[in-house]
Amino acid sequence: MKSFTLDPRLANDCLVLGEMRLSLLLLLKNSLVPWFILVPRRHQTEIFELGREDQEALLEEINLISGFVKGLSGVEKLNVAAIGNVVKQLHVHVIGRNSEDFCWPNVVWGRPKKTPYTVEEIRAIRESLVTKLPEGSLQLT
Amino acid sequence: MKSFTLDPRLANDCLVLGEMRLSLLLLLKNSLVPWFILVPRRHQTEIFELGREDQEALLEEINLISGFVKGLSGVEKLNVAAIGNVVKQLHVHVIGRNSEDFCWPNVVWGRPKKTPYTVEEIRAIRESLVTKLPEGSLQLT
Repeated sequence: MKSFTLDPRLANDCLVLGEMRLSLLLLLKNSLVPWFILVPRRHQTEIFELGREDQEALLEEINLISGFVKGLSGVEKLNVAAIGNVVKQLHVHVIGRNSEDFCWPNVVWGRPKKTPYTVEEIRAIRESLVTKLPEGSLQLT
Repeated sequence: MKSFTLDPRLANDCLVLGEMRLSLLLLLKNSLVPWFILVPRRHQTEIFELGREDQEALLEEINLISGFVKGLSGVEKLNVAAIGNVVKQLHVHVIGRNSEDFCWPNVVWGRPKKTPYTVEEIRAIRESLVTKLPEGSLQLT
């Protein structure tokens, strides 16, 4: 089995927050909306190609991150998507949307507008993940 | 329990192909890309809010439609997404993409360009679904 390496474009655009059972949990470096990405440590490029156990693990991780993002202040709707037209490595976006956010009601992909996180904001997100996710579901890196 | 009614915007933009165990299967009236939509007959608006059994049924239906779409001529990549910023009723897009399609590598949402299907094309899609999906997984309407 080939070892797993995070796609360099994801590594460049995101911060690796930690590891879940199946996936790496990333945070897109753009504070305009809460935008998390799950990257299964697998080589398949489509969800339906994953084995049954991996699919169940991914669903569980999507559930956990969805619940976390939906609980964030101001989040009214989730956008959950596996697209991968540019970066083929399987990755699932879990994004919190608000009816006053920068591109509502349009989708967020393909928009160049970005605002970096401060160190303090990232620290708060990490702490909040540790507090709100079930114990053991995320190992922060 | 409230009865389930398909959102009128989905009903207007799509053709109802049939019913799966959990979801209605729709075809967007736009032949530029193969674009199917699963609409669980439920009232939750987010995947993570569905009960466990419904989630498993939805995953199975996403798997079946993903496999079907990936097997269509010219499909190189799937886009699978639950967005719902405009239409709140939970619905999951399963779209087949090709590196020469009308908006590759951008996402397909929010683009007004449309080409209707012919009656013959729709008939062929229905027949292909019946042939390729496991028996009993889809009741055509």
